Formats: sequence, C-alpha cells, structure tokens
Amino acid sequence: MEAGIAGTQAAAFGDEIVGRIDELGAISETSEHLARIFLTSEHRAAADLIIGWMRAAGMRAHLDAIGNVSGRYEGERPGLPCLMLGSHYDTVRDAGKWDGPLGLITAISCVADLNRRGRRLPFAIEVTGFADEEGVRFGSTLLGSRAVAGTFDESVLKSRDSSGQTMRDALAQFGLDPEHIGAAARARSELLAYIELHIEQGPVLETERLPVGVVTAISGATRLAASLTGMAGHAGTVPMLLRRDALAGAAECIVAIEEFCRTDSGGLVGTVGYINAMPGATNVIPGQVSFTIDLRAASDAHRKLAVADIVRRIEAIAGRRRLGLQLDVTHENRTVPCAPWLKAQVADAVAAEGHRVFELPSGAGHDGMAMIDIADVAMVFVRCRGGISHHPDEHVDTADAEAGARVLLRLIENFRPRGPGITTKS
Amino acid sequence: MEAGIAGTQAAAFGDEIVGRIDELGAISETSEHLARIFLTSEHRAAADLIIGWMRAAGMRAHLDAIGNVSGRYEGERPGLPCLMLGSHYDTVRDAGKWDGPLGLITAISCVADLNRRGRRLPFAIEVTGFADEEGVRFGSTLLGSRAVAGTFDESVLKSRDSSGQTMRDALAQFGLDPEHIGAAARARSELLAYIELHIEQGPVLETERLPVGVVTAISGATRLAASLTGMAGHAGTVPMLLRRDALAGAAECIVAIEEFCRTDSGGLVGTVGYINAMPGATNVIPGQVSFTIDLRAASDAHRKLAVADIVRRIEAIAGRRRLGLQLDVTHENRTVPCAPWLKAQVADAVAAEGHRVFELPSGAGHDGMAMIDIADVAMVFVRCRGGISHHPDEHVDTADAEAGARVLLRLIENFRPRGPGITTKS
Repeated sequence: MEAGIAGTQAAAFGDEIVGRIDELGAISETSEHLARIFLTSEHRAAADLIIGWMRAAGMRAHLDAIGNVSGRYEGERPGLPCLMLGSHYDTVRDAGKWDGPLGLITAISCVADLNRRGRRLPFAIEVTGFADEEGVRFGSTLLGSRAVAGTFDESVLKSRDSSGQTMRDALAQFGLDPEHIGAAARARSELLAYIELHIEQGPVLETERLPVGVVTAISGATRLAASLTGMAGHAGTVPMLLRRDALAGAAECIVAIEEFCRTDSGGLVGTVGYINAMPGATNVIPGQVSFTIDLRAASDAHRKLAVADIVRRIEAIAGRRRLGLQLDVTHENRTVPCAPWLKAQVADAVAAEGHRVFELPSGAGHDGMAMIDIADVAMVFVRCRGGISHHPDEHVDTADAEAGARVLLRLIENFRPRGPGITTKS
Repeated sequence: MEAGIAGTQAAAFGDEIVGRIDELGAISETSEHLARIFLTSEHRAAADLIIGWMRAAGMRAHLDAIGNVSGRYEGERPGLPCLMLGSHYDTVRDAGKWDGPLGLITAISCVADLNRRGRRLPFAIEVTGFADEEGVRFGSTLLGSRAVAGTFDESVLKSRDSSGQTMRDALAQFGLDPEHIGAAARARSELLAYIELHIEQGPVLETERLPVGVVTAISGATRLAASLTGMAGHAGTVPMLLRRDALAGAAECIVAIEEFCRTDSGGLVGTVGYINAMPGATNVIPGQVSFTIDLRAASDAHRKLAVADIVRRIEAIAGRRRLGLQLDVTHENRTVPCAPWLKAQVADAVAAEGHRVFELPSGAGHDGMAMIDIADVAMVFVRCRGGISHHPDEHVDTADAEAGARVLLRLIENFRPRGPGITTKS
C-alpha cells in the first residue's frame, strides 16, 4: 500500500530547509537578536517571503484575516477536503530560528517535491503559517490557530501592547479588518487532520539518539502560585526550634515537588521557576516566601491527581511548620491527545524511514492546542541540539531536518483519512 | 558582702526609663518612622538630651571626638578606674525605640539613684552612649565603640553616605575634627570592665518566661555567598531525570542547613535569608541560583566546625546533582565571650533579684565586640515582646525594664574588680 518515493529529490531537502530557515531568521526587528512579532513590518516581510515559497511550490497562497499565511495544493480534483500541515512563524524575543519555521518550511518543501513530480493525492494539502503562537505582543498565545479554529476570543482585540496600542488598531494598521477575523475560521468538514512538525525543544530525542519522535499528546499544564507566611526574625537571635522560617518551608516544598515528579512513572514534570523571599536580607529569617509551581502530564487525569497530591504535601509541610499557606491555581490548560489513528500513521512513516519508533509527550504548547477544536491532531518532533529552545543557540542538524522532511513526505503520501464509521477513542 | 538596696527609689525605675525611651524615640528624621542616624541633627538633639540626663544624674558629661556621649560619676575619690556601662543611641531605619537606648537610659537611671543616695563606690562609673553601632549611614558598624577602643579604622573616613558625602565631611559639618578621632580612645588601665544591658532581640527569654538573662558570649558569625549553576530549560520539555535544576539543588541545601543546625545541641543557628533564582520565570527551569548563608555559634571553634561541615554537605549536593558551585566567605566575626568572672557577678545579681539564672548567647552584634579590645565584657539581656526588634513593634514591658534596672543597680553596687593575679580563662 505504500507509495515509494525513490527517485525524488529527497536528498536536497535538508539544504533547502536550512537555507530557508536562515533566510527567514534574518527577518527580525533588530540585527542583534531574533524577534519577529505579530503585526509588525517583519511579520509582513516574512509573510511575503513564505507566500512566495508557497507559490513556487505550486500552491495558491494568501494572507488570511488574522495574518496567517495559507497555501493550498489541490488534490486529484479541486475542492477536496485537505490534510492541513503547519506551524507558526512568529518568534519570542532573542529567539532561535527553528521554533515554528522548521515545521512550516518543511511542509512547503514536501509540497514542492510532490509538485515537481506532478503528484496529486486523493485529498488537498494546505500549509498554514500561524501569525502568532507565542503571544509576545499582546500576551495571548495561539491567536493565529484560534482564528482558524473559530475560537478566537474577540475580547482580546482590546488588549494593548507595551506601547499602548490595541490589537484592534494594530490589525487595522497592518491592513486587516478587525471586524472580520471570523473569515479566517475553517469548518471541520474541510479538514481531514492537522499535522505539525516541530523541534522538540527538549533533550529527550538527543538522549535517545533519534532524529525524530512521535508525539503522544500536548501535555496539559496547571500553574499554581504559592505563598508561605512565617515570622521574620533576626538571623542571630532566634533559636532554630523557635523559628517559623518561610524559606526553609518553601525549600522543603520544592524538594518534595521534585521528588514526587521524579518518582512518577508517567512522565509528570514539575517546576518551581520563580521564588521570592522577603525581606530578603542575609541576616533576617524570611517571614514570607512566594513561589510558582508548573505541573504537566500527558493526560488530564494524571495531572489532576498529581496536583491534588502535591497540594496535600504542601499543606502538610505548612501545617507542621506552623506557616500560613495561600495556594491558588493561576492557569490551567487541558491535555491535547494526538489522535491514535493519526499517530499510528506517523509511527508507520518513522519506521519506514528506518528509525526506531519512539513516543514522547510535548511538554511545550503548540498550535494543535487550538486546532483540536476542528480536527484530529498529530505531531512529529525533530531533535534539537541540547534541548535548547527560545534561545539563539537553538539548532537542528541538517541531517535531522532532512530526516524530519522525509518522514513528513512519506506521511503525506501514505496518508489515509479516518474512514467513516471508524471510531477511535483519543 | 552584698549591699542592700532596700529603701531606694527602685520602684520608680520602670516609669522613668519608659518615659525617657519615649522622649528619645521622638527624635527621628521623620515622624512616620524612627530613624536616628549618625552625624545628623537628630544625633545632635539626642546627644543634648542624654547629656542633660547624665548631668542631672550627677555626672560630668561631654560629647567625645566621634560623637559618643560620655558621662562620668566619680568614685570614692576622683580619678579612679571606672566600670563602664553603655549602649548605642543610633537606630536602624523604621526602628524600635528600645534597641540601644534601653541600656544607656537604664545605666543613667542607676547612677542617678546612687547619686540621690549620695553613694560613692570604690571605683568610678562611666556611661557611654555610642554614636553609631548600626552602621546605617556609612555601612560600617561599631564606629562609636571602635573609637573608644582605639581600633577605629581611619580608612572609613573616606566612605560616603547615599547622598555622596564622606564621613570626613559629615564629621566636620557636625563640628567634630576628623583628624582627632583618636582622642576618643581610652586606655585599658582606665577600665575595670564593660557591662551592657540590652534588649534580647530574640524570643528566648519570653519562651523561658524570664525578664532577664545572662549573656554567655556575643556569637561570632560567618556569612557565605553560594551560587549553584545548572541548566535552564523549558518547564514542559525536559524530563525530571535529565534536569540540572539549580533551584531544586538550592532547596536541598537550605533543608540540609536547617536540619544540621536544628540537630546541633550547642545553639548553632543557620539562616538562608536571601535567594535569587534565574531566569525566574514560571515556565523555565532555573539555571542559576544565588543564596546567602549566615551561621552563628557561641564559640569560634564550634562555628568553624559547623561551617566546614555545611560546606561539605553543599559540595556533596552540588556534585550529586552535577551543579556548578561557587561558595565564598563574605564576612567573618569572631566570637566575643563574656568574661567568666564578670558573668558570675551578673548571675549573682540576677539571682539576688529573685530570678532564675538563665544563660544565653547573643546572636546579634553589640558594642562589646569592639570593647573587648580594651576591657572584659559582660551583658544583661532584657526580655522583649515576641522577640521582635528592628521594627516599630519592638516593645519591653515596664516591669521588665524595672527588673533589668534593678539587676544592673545591684550588679554595680556589688561590683568587685577582677583582683590582680587572678587569671580567668575566657
């Protein structure tokens, strides 16, 4: 059943992709570091460049109502439902070049290869470059994919960037009509699936010595803000047994969170990234400590159980130490499981390319978190050096970019839509 | 051998002391909080007030070359060596009224009582109000007592306050000659001992339900700056077992320091008062954490062993977690033991006043740390509410001020200088 791709120009993928990564990575608000922000002139220049690549690959391409670039390669006849591929082309500040663009550029290269060979499939292919996934400018992530999924929250049009400009004004200035963002929305019936290739942004594939991995789910996350209140006091005059040291209590909580997650067999991760001890002087026992907790797991049930267990442990520590405790959930994202029928096709393509099939969750968020509302979702991860991302040192070897592209192309050529009447539980 | 003090006006001590605490506490650079800083107009106003109290108590009194107030009550004949009493009358910012002034005012009240009764002792009494113990303005502590001890470091004359003024200029503007600070120095032969009454600044006497305590030593302190370097990373994408989380490492160190000190039977105290985790974002594993360690014990040997042991534990934690470690001693104060022969006389006075004799170290620094260079030192602690100090809530009950004064008066009246040829090891 597999279509061979022998004789294609597959060997050239890597160089073409890396060249385009560099070309797109040069479009930045400053030459000192990479920053390509929503609705800026860099957004415009990048969109123009990508639309050019799409057209050269045989696609019809346009900018949609929120500033996404959207390219379509028809199937065996016009108007067929599409397999949608994509990723985002905005960046964080002081970013790497690969986070987002790799998936977008790889998808265009795959379509270009089909086009060169004159190959049409029994479905259309669309490639979407999402305009704002990172949420740098207005503090709301997934703006591009939410517009496509029809879940764009119009209230965010009122939010302002750091200069005070509203999103509504920024859209208008960019030449987009803020009243018609709904035009970017797609119907579920138009999409057969959404597949995204992305750098891993973590060290797992490198540790496993694998160029590509099959994503099981985009992990949900719960964030908590914790505050412990004890009694400040002089570092010299309060005996240990009379202390209510908020920082010692927080330290015990941090060790307990780490221990709980380390001994979890289900891939739970827990992070205390921020801590503040007051008053914060060398010779004063901290009376008040604030810290954050970020917990992620590949299923909502697993994460919720872990949150409840960790909350109980923190409450026990605070109680035993006679510390006041305030613990609030500040953020919660559901887990987005990759559809088993799609994930199986990703695994087949990985195996056919000669790689060991290795599954891993995505701890970072991706546009699939929005796309799940109109399509089943799958993701392919590509190894990145040292697991480093959101940093200029972000890097993908050309051979790994090549491997990712070959997996994606094979996946596209062998793609089988979910048959009617076949129900798979996700 | 004990001189009775029945028939004195002892019952009035408490009210007089509390009244004067309030009067002195009203001299502040702002009415919003108490701040009485070295070489300011408040320093001048406070010195004038204290000199007035000294003269009313039958003392000759003057401002010395560094701005200390110095009063002398002659003994049975003029020119005898003195028992020196004292404390400081500068404050931290947002201070309590009692830290320093209680010892100074109590000493003046005791002399006033002797004077009222026409009682002269076989030694003179001097009361010194030190001008700068806290070191708020120029960042150098014990300026007043170092000048009296002849250990004033002239290089600090060049140090500048937050407005840029040098100490040299501030002294001249105050009317003191910065070239003649040496004139404040006293000779060892002039002093029989230095005794200071001070609020405890800790909760131990309150826990013991005692108004007064006998100080064993002013604890030495070692301060260390620690820095752990791991690898920053995305809170979602790096599995627990691949992390080098600098904050989790620091938390384990903080728990270990607390545990080590809690299980020490010799009164060791250890505090991590400051911590900073970088980059400090909710969703980023901290790659670098700095924290401070403050360790105090009532003997240098005990503290040094503890420092070495804690350093080994931190090194082991960093090594096991593959974290880089930088650990530097930033500050070291020797322990100042109270002279056993003097401490015994304090204990006798406490017992004679009907209190259980309870010994405790001073974890906070005091002018005795400088005075030890020219005299044997002892201290009497008075209970303060909740152990709170360096805070507007600092409070001493009138009955406790009374109890402290009665102990000090009894101590003075029964004071026996260390006999020649009697060598006591401290």
